[in-house]
Amino acid sequence: MSEDEVNFDWNRRKRIGIGEAVLAQGKSREQLYAIVEAAVRRNASVLFTRLDDQMAAGLPEIDYHAPSRTGVLGSFPAHRIKSSVAIVTAGTSDAPAAWEAQRTLAFNGHEATLIFDVGVAGLHRLLARLEEIERHNVVIAVAGMDAALASVLAGQVSRPVIGVPTSTGYGAAREGDTALSSMLASCAAGLSVVNIDNGFGAACAALRILNTSRDKSGSTTRTLPQSPGT
Amino acid sequence: MSEDEVNFDWNRRKRIGIGEAVLAQGKSREQLYAIVEAAVRRNASVLFTRLDDQMAAGLPEIDYHAPSRTGVLGSFPAHRIKSSVAIVTAGTSDAPAAWEAQRTLAFNGHEATLIFDVGVAGLHRLLARLEEIERHNVVIAVAGMDAALASVLAGQVSRPVIGVPTSTGYGAAREGDTALSSMLASCAAGLSVVNIDNGFGAACAALRILNTSRDKSGSTTRTLPQSPGT
Amino acid sequence: MSEDEVNFDWNRRKRIGIGEAVLAQGKSREQLYAIVEAAVRRNASVLFTRLDDQMAAGLPEIDYHAPSRTGVLGSFPAHRIKSSVAIVTAGTSDAPAAWEAQRTLAFNGHEATLIFDVGVAGLHRLLARLEEIERHNVVIAVAGMDAALASVLAGQVSRPVIGVPTSTGYGAAREGDTALSSMLASCAAGLSVVNIDNGFGAACAALRILNTSRDKSGSTTRTLPQSPGT
Amino acid sequence: MSEDEVNFDWNRRKRIGIGEAVLAQGKSREQLYAIVEAAVRRNASVLFTRLDDQMAAGLPEIDYHAPSRTGVLGSFPAHRIKSSVAIVTAGTSDAPAAWEAQRTLAFNGHEATLIFDVGVAGLHRLLARLEEIERHNVVIAVAGMDAALASVLAGQVSRPVIGVPTSTGYGAAREGDTALSSMLASCAAGLSVVNIDNGFGAACAALRILNTSRDKSGSTTRTLPQSPGT
Amino acid sequence: MSEDEVNFDWNRRKRIGIGEAVLAQGKSREQLYAIVEAAVRRNASVLFTRLDDQMAAGLPEIDYHAPSRTGVLGSFPAHRIKSSVAIVTAGTSDAPAAWEAQRTLAFNGHEATLIFDVGVAGLHRLLARLEEIERHNVVIAVAGMDAALASVLAGQVSRPVIGVPTSTGYGAAREGDTALSSMLASCAAGLSVVNIDNGFGAACAALRILNTSRDKSGSTTRTLPQSPGT
Amino acid sequence: MSEDEVNFDWNRRKRIGIGEAVLAQGKSREQLYAIVEAAVRRNASVLFTRLDDQMAAGLPEIDYHAPSRTGVLGSFPAHRIKSSVAIVTAGTSDAPAAWEAQRTLAFNGHEATLIFDVGVAGLHRLLARLEEIERHNVVIAVAGMDAALASVLAGQVSRPVIGVPTSTGYGAAREGDTALSSMLASCAAGLSVVNIDNGFGAACAALRILNTSRDKSGSTTRTLPQSPGT
Amino acid sequence: MSEDEVNFDWNRRKRIGIGEAVLAQGKSREQLYAIVEAAVRRNASVLFTRLDDQMAAGLPEIDYHAPSRTGVLGSFPAHRIKSSVAIVTAGTSDAPAAWEAQRTLAFNGHEATLIFDVGVAGLHRLLARLEEIERHNVVIAVAGMDAALASVLAGQVSRPVIGVPTSTGYGAAREGDTALSSMLASCAAGLSVVNIDNGFGAACAALRILNTSRDKSGSTTRTLPQSPGT
Amino acid sequence: MSEDEVNFDWNRRKRIGIGEAVLAQGKSREQLYAIVEAAVRRNASVLFTRLDDQMAAGLPEIDYHAPSRTGVLGSFPAHRIKSSVAIVTAGTSDAPAAWEAQRTLAFNGHEATLIFDVGVAGLHRLLARLEEIERHNVVIAVAGMDAALASVLAGQVSRPVIGVPTSTGYGAAREGDTALSSMLASCAAGLSVVNIDNGFGAACAALRILNTSRDKSGSTTRTLPQSPGT
Repeated sequence: MSEDEVNFDWNRRKRIGIGEAVLAQGKSREQLYAIVEAAVRRNASVLFTRLDDQMAAGLPEIDYHAPSRTGVLGSFPAHRIKSSVAIVTAGTSDAPAAWEAQRTLAFNGHEATLIFDVGVAGLHRLLARLEEIERHNVVIAVAGMDAALASVLAGQVSRPVIGVPTSTGYGAAREGDTALSSMLASCAAGLSVVNIDNGFGAACAALRILNTSRDKSGSTTRTLPQSPGT
Repeated sequence: MSEDEVNFDWNRRKRIGIGEAVLAQGKSREQLYAIVEAAVRRNASVLFTRLDDQMAAGLPEIDYHAPSRTGVLGSFPAHRIKSSVAIVTAGTSDAPAAWEAQRTLAFNGHEATLIFDVGVAGLHRLLARLEEIERHNVVIAVAGMDAALASVLAGQVSRPVIGVPTSTGYGAAREGDTALSSMLASCAAGLSVVNIDNGFGAACAALRILNTSRDKSGSTTRTLPQSPGT
Repeated sequence: MSEDEVNFDWNRRKRIGIGEAVLAQGKSREQLYAIVEAAVRRNASVLFTRLDDQMAAGLPEIDYHAPSRTGVLGSFPAHRIKSSVAIVTAGTSDAPAAWEAQRTLAFNGHEATLIFDVGVAGLHRLLARLEEIERHNVVIAVAGMDAALASVLAGQVSRPVIGVPTSTGYGAAREGDTALSSMLASCAAGLSVVNIDNGFGAACAALRILNTSRDKSGSTTRTLPQSPGT
Repeated sequence: MSEDEVNFDWNRRKRIGIGEAVLAQGKSREQLYAIVEAAVRRNASVLFTRLDDQMAAGLPEIDYHAPSRTGVLGSFPAHRIKSSVAIVTAGTSDAPAAWEAQRTLAFNGHEATLIFDVGVAGLHRLLARLEEIERHNVVIAVAGMDAALASVLAGQVSRPVIGVPTSTGYGAAREGDTALSSMLASCAAGLSVVNIDNGFGAACAALRILNTSRDKSGSTTRTLPQSPGT
Repeated sequence: MSEDEVNFDWNRRKRIGIGEAVLAQGKSREQLYAIVEAAVRRNASVLFTRLDDQMAAGLPEIDYHAPSRTGVLGSFPAHRIKSSVAIVTAGTSDAPAAWEAQRTLAFNGHEATLIFDVGVAGLHRLLARLEEIERHNVVIAVAGMDAALASVLAGQVSRPVIGVPTSTGYGAAREGDTALSSMLASCAAGLSVVNIDNGFGAACAALRILNTSRDKSGSTTRTLPQSPGT
Repeated sequence: MSEDEVNFDWNRRKRIGIGEAVLAQGKSREQLYAIVEAAVRRNASVLFTRLDDQMAAGLPEIDYHAPSRTGVLGSFPAHRIKSSVAIVTAGTSDAPAAWEAQRTLAFNGHEATLIFDVGVAGLHRLLARLEEIERHNVVIAVAGMDAALASVLAGQVSRPVIGVPTSTGYGAAREGDTALSSMLASCAAGLSVVNIDNGFGAACAALRILNTSRDKSGSTTRTLPQSPGT
Repeated sequence: MSEDEVNFDWNRRKRIGIGEAVLAQGKSREQLYAIVEAAVRRNASVLFTRLDDQMAAGLPEIDYHAPSRTGVLGSFPAHRIKSSVAIVTAGTSDAPAAWEAQRTLAFNGHEATLIFDVGVAGLHRLLARLEEIERHNVVIAVAGMDAALASVLAGQVSRPVIGVPTSTGYGAAREGDTALSSMLASCAAGLSVVNIDNGFGAACAALRILNTSRDKSGSTTRTLPQSPGT
Repeated sequence: MSEDEVNFDWNRRKRIGIGEAVLAQGKSREQLYAIVEAAVRRNASVLFTRLDDQMAAGLPEIDYHAPSRTGVLGSFPAHRIKSSVAIVTAGTSDAPAAWEAQRTLAFNGHEATLIFDVGVAGLHRLLARLEEIERHNVVIAVAGMDAALASVLAGQVSRPVIGVPTSTGYGAAREGDTALSSMLASCAAGLSVVNIDNGFGAACAALRILNTSRDKSGSTTRTLPQSPGT
């Protein structure tokens, strides 16, 4: 793949308010090189997700964060809005998806609060933090296995709750499928869900919510494809 | 089941901002009677979802809407906020879930805009409506089969997009599972998803977003369970 | 099928301490008749499970309880031990499995306590009952959809907790499979699980626990098959 | 992850009678270090499960047992109760889950009896041991593939039988899912089941049974979260 | 569908030794009429399987047996070979598949022995019949749910054992899929399996075995398709 | 495996118009050697698919192309027909399947047009190329995750569209199963589909279409197997 | 639903060469009425698929064909092209999907040849028809259960072969999923596949092939949506 | 595991006519050592299946055959019966399961005929061998992907046909599950099936058939477990 073949969607941030991001997993070294070169030449910032250590080692231009497997080309915004999002995890193993969400929000100008290890098996840990969680505009609930945290949380707080099921666990955890279905079938009203381990997606859903409360210029609509009027 | 056994969560609206709702499916006639009686005595409004014709016929106190299989005990709010939510469907068969969302929003004080039948097989139908859709605060995308509408929509509008996969289709549509997985694996960033055919859940997720932009009294936090300080 | 073909396991109660039970579902009317006749002639008590209304109408000898779909041929024990088992349900729709467990326990001499409708979406309802639940020897947790009740409960009480996933819900609830996997993958230690909607099985598991604390005569081992010493 | 982020549930043993345990699988080296340090500082004993050789090599404080992939930080109880639990396996390949159960019981004060390799393909091997098995208070049946051992066992002994399906086998064994479903659908009454390969969970379920027969102080209930009385 | 469209494989019995059979399920009334007429005109015997009551009522030429849902057009062989096949079932609900096998064998000249209700939950019932079963040339094991009967049986008898998983049970029985996978993953060597509820297929597999021990004329090979010698 | 055991279908090209191809995956080194030797001796061209780097390194006779994992023994046709097929991909990660299709077409005499990275998340990229795509005789749509590209494309162009779902993505992408089901359930009429990642199969389907429009000699029908006239 | 809400894609035939079609399944009576009225007013022809008897009875304007569950509003083309498509089925039960394909082709101007009941269990029936099948431009292979017909056919004929898996069979046939996967994993090169029972889709795929060989005016491209040139 | 823990079923050959075999996969090095030592001391022959290269390297007493992953401790019978079984494979990749069957038969005294690479995509290859195949007493059909070979074969030969689905293929081949379901749902009557890749099981099923035609001493029945006469 030559660099000419890189076909970026450079208008994405302008159109939907989310910066350019690239899913590194499944791409070859050559493809990632070409993407970096194209972005550098255009002086664009890019967030790479699911980028493993070996891949990152070959891309020195990138600010790499191993636990979340994210890399940033270019710079984070200097000023970030605080306390807009609470990211809550059930267990220690859910941290990578939480960090992916945190880094995605930072890349887009928001400083999230991380609240770790408050799974429902020891319920008091969660109850002690509920008021703090409620003070944020959006809540991201990260949980694997039975994902009961998301249901309990959505039953107690009034904020938008976005569930991130994780692949934590084994056997009947089914690599995250049980957590996913459990969140979708939750007894709590109004919990919405993203893909397994998709901290990036949850952050983007949060960004859409946060962006909506701000004024938007007409520039967005100008980039919409137009029907030819048939 | 006697009426004494009805154990309502009467504080739900106060706690999370969403009115009391009951999933009628799977409940016996006796259980539904007991629920209605308990609510009537308390003078409470209740939304019933997935309530079929036969069940509804035995509950005359309820305002029943067959296409959405919803029933309302008590009254809708007199004043509803307009244009806050756009509900967009891919095909005619997706209408029941859309109406369920519409009725849930109305029950909670919001007047949604319905945009029907703009599936991507005839792309111009959707492109012609994009600007209109973008003017709402939240977008609910209702689609079955391949659910491509949700991806295209989330790629073009900046608003929070909540996907409702539907059980429309047959064979490989797998009663909505394909639409569900398709939305979860969407190539568009920040699409969040609710259960199959769950227009109610999508509306509740939208309500959480809409409620968050308004001031909230401290009463909510007073109803939170408290940790005993261990 | 003639009555001669009925091949009962008449020693079951003697061998494993649980009275004879018959799964009615999947059996023809003729087969059920033959079973009743064989039992009547032997003056034996039999518990029928998953017996629907139509089937039961043709078996007047049976004491039928429609909500649990159970029928009893013969009589319940006159004296029942109280407070040995707490049966806790998440929602109203989980009642049939709870009643099936209750009737199975009654048939075997135990009076269970029913605690309904304490699902985690309104957590205070459950927290208010925890001390009462803890006072029983065995806890049966009945929940569908995300089955979060079972995890929360097993995290808070020290008693044996047997989970009964139910087929409540739709879509991603997958007819109880999500609740089942969720319970199996629970973050709470030592929750054990039975088949979907299997209140009977949970009651039998409880009986094994309750029976073990009592003295057992050697008669049981006498009925064990013997190896020929090869 | 710094050590400050470790959020242990230190009251677990007091609350539900089972010592602190950590699922090592899915945690990073850094996370495991932080957990060990926090526990050492508090002088707490911790059981690590699904801890592989490489991870264990970096944690010299831990007493590691490779075949069961368990490690213990701190010490086992000096006095253990004998013959309370029989752990029975169908084949040699089921041993790891059996050893995990054995080590979990030992960590919590019980000395289990191991009975290996008595699968039903050679039925006499099992029949010769039935009387011995019946003399224990709880039976843990560990089996993969068709898991027929669990059904035969539960049909012959009166004790609580907890099934541990294992991932032994290939193809239609479906990494333990067949054994799991087979146990759940067992024709024997009152068999309860834990997750695939979850010897730890079976041991905890046994502990709940064993603990229940002993007197319990009121201290447990004092640590329960309290409802604020709404 | 006119009768001209019936495209029978009239040489099947000559080619593979099994009489013509028609799967009625999924065929329309018109199609079944056309098949009967074509067979009558050719004076051929045909076995119909999975033929429900309503369908059968419209086909008076057929000797219908409701419990097995089989119908025979033409006559059964006058002389049948005895004791060649033992058909063994785990429970009463497995009878329909057993009867389908029995009728298929009878239609092809063999009188099978039926042994009902010897599931492993009450193991002595099976052990008492093992010697009798061993005296047959082929064994058909019919079992649903955990299908443990097939494993125990194949571990104890030396004859060819053909497993018929049945759709008996609910929940984790997965409409026969658990029994099917359980048999395929059996710990007993040399158990072979047919489709769920497929008593017909098991009987045909038995017929292939029974036919092979007899002398075969060269006529069979004459009907084989020939390669053109490329 | 000795070379004698290689049983090629040397008449395939003559019979169905597609050159000999070998699926390398799943074959041992020895088997691949034997195949190469047999082909060399016969002076035949062979296309190898799913041939990984290590395997290819041991087969120096082969022209290997790593990104598509294809290797060609013998030569490509000197003259290739241009613009007959457009191969369109949603993302960069879909490239390997696209290249496999391209190389298969080239091996069979067609020069395809590659159009990369036009997924629907940035719809304008696709809309800009629709007229160009329509000018080809066949369209191959390569897409993973939600596979929405295939539906949008088939809704806009009139040409035969063959979908290749890819294993791109994670979690709910289910290793390509979601893309596969999504394409099969597409709301666009007349989209046909091949196996996951099967660029080879899509190219062969295209070749069947392209070959049909050309005159065919009678030689094909001469190699058909003949019925012996029973 | 009022008639105003009908949002037809009236340009479909002009754009992609396939007449307007409506999937009736999943639509309410009111929705179908509104569609018929809108089409009648516009004097448009519409093909209804998966339209059951009861629905059709309420729509007298429609020419209904029960075996294929198709209905046509308006008229079939007077002149139809012959012998362009061969529709081949494995068994009698596969006929409905074959007829659906036939009717769809007729509605779009092609007269297909039907070849029934040539499944591979009696291979000579298929071999006798191979030359005839090869004389058509496109082959549609309709088969359920193991779907072996499609593989054998695609291995013997050179024409485009479109597989239609059907839901014929039971148990391991998995309502058509086995036939679907079997066709996708076929050992024959270049078989493409549509959804289960989707005779309509196969016919549309054939139409795309047949239409491509004819000259096309530029009108098609004029109706394509246009990118705004970002 | 010490050697004392080895609990062999030494009577298996006497009881069911099949020599002792050990599934090596899933066993640790220590467990395999203990098994070898126990067998050596008893001078017993043992067949190891699914034994990989590394494991085998540590067991020098074993005659190892890498392609089939089988090892034999002790010796093969000197005299083997010829032509009793034909093992037929669809493709080269199916060879390992075929060799496993061949080695198992040899270990038990039968010399099988191997017929490779006759898959139905090139049907003439199979048709040319049908008469030869028919001359054997049992046929083992080994095939992956669509497994169409098994259906065609069972439709043409009269002998017992045992299908071995293999994990050959990718994507919709689902690691052998498609081949497995395809064989189970086969349109050919009397095909029976074993687990995926289970050449050993197919050989054992064949041995049961071959053994049944020979006279058997009463010794078998003497080793049967006996019911105590309850």
